[in-house]
Amino acid sequence: MSDTKKELEEGNALSINFEKRGGLIPAVAQDGRDGSILMLGYVNRQAFEETLRLGMATFWSTSRNELWTKGATSGDFLKLVKILVDCDQDAIVYVVEPQGSGACHTKDPATGAARKSCFYRQVNLKTGKLERAE
Amino acid sequence: MSDTKKELEEGNALSINFEKRGGLIPAVAQDGRDGSILMLGYVNRQAFEETLRLGMATFWSTSRNELWTKGATSGDFLKLVKILVDCDQDAIVYVVEPQGSGACHTKDPATGAARKSCFYRQVNLKTGKLERAE
Repeated sequence: MSDTKKELEEGNALSINFEKRGGLIPAVAQDGRDGSILMLGYVNRQAFEETLRLGMATFWSTSRNELWTKGATSGDFLKLVKILVDCDQDAIVYVVEPQGSGACHTKDPATGAARKSCFYRQVNLKTGKLERAE
Repeated sequence: MSDTKKELEEGNALSINFEKRGGLIPAVAQDGRDGSILMLGYVNRQAFEETLRLGMATFWSTSRNELWTKGATSGDFLKLVKILVDCDQDAIVYVVEPQGSGACHTKDPATGAARKSCFYRQVNLKTGKLERAE
């Protein structure tokens, strides 16, 4: 194993490889209370630094092409608990404590409130259709 | 909201938008037993279909540029429990039951066994250095 690879995987230097993925890496937001996965967004260096500065999960919106602190408009902030970094430092997990009703921009038709997670559907492995996640 | 967007977000038709992300979407592998996040990989249509066919989490290796069924060489298969799909159908979660010692290609120096998760380090929010994840 090269020294560079060893340092990347086993070292304590934070050197997230944004460049490897074109400047943006995937960031998973996970609820620290129950382990559920809330959403997946993308993060560039600026969004990562803003997350550290604010203590709130911040992404780079690939649709609006702008910095996006989750909750800045809705109030549904995702308060940062910790940031996990993977072996080759090109993916991260924001472990968070949701401050509002939900992390998803969609609303539950039954309640009208933002859904807690964007992953509210699962694939029915027999039919190949989507159904409500259990 | 357009009908297309409504169907994408609220419908039961599986129509994963691989094209939106250049043919590859991020796929999070999550341990169905304790909710921990094991790894993040990428999936194209072929890898997704192979996952359904085998019942084992399969990715597209962006480094080797080939289909990659996790565990095919190491034995550390990730047996599929369910697949979650997000609101705009461009990210998925493989909820899995790990069959081997670990999902990561790195080894724990203390045991010599594959680490359970690729996310074995966290950012120390005071120093900005990496430390062992709690």
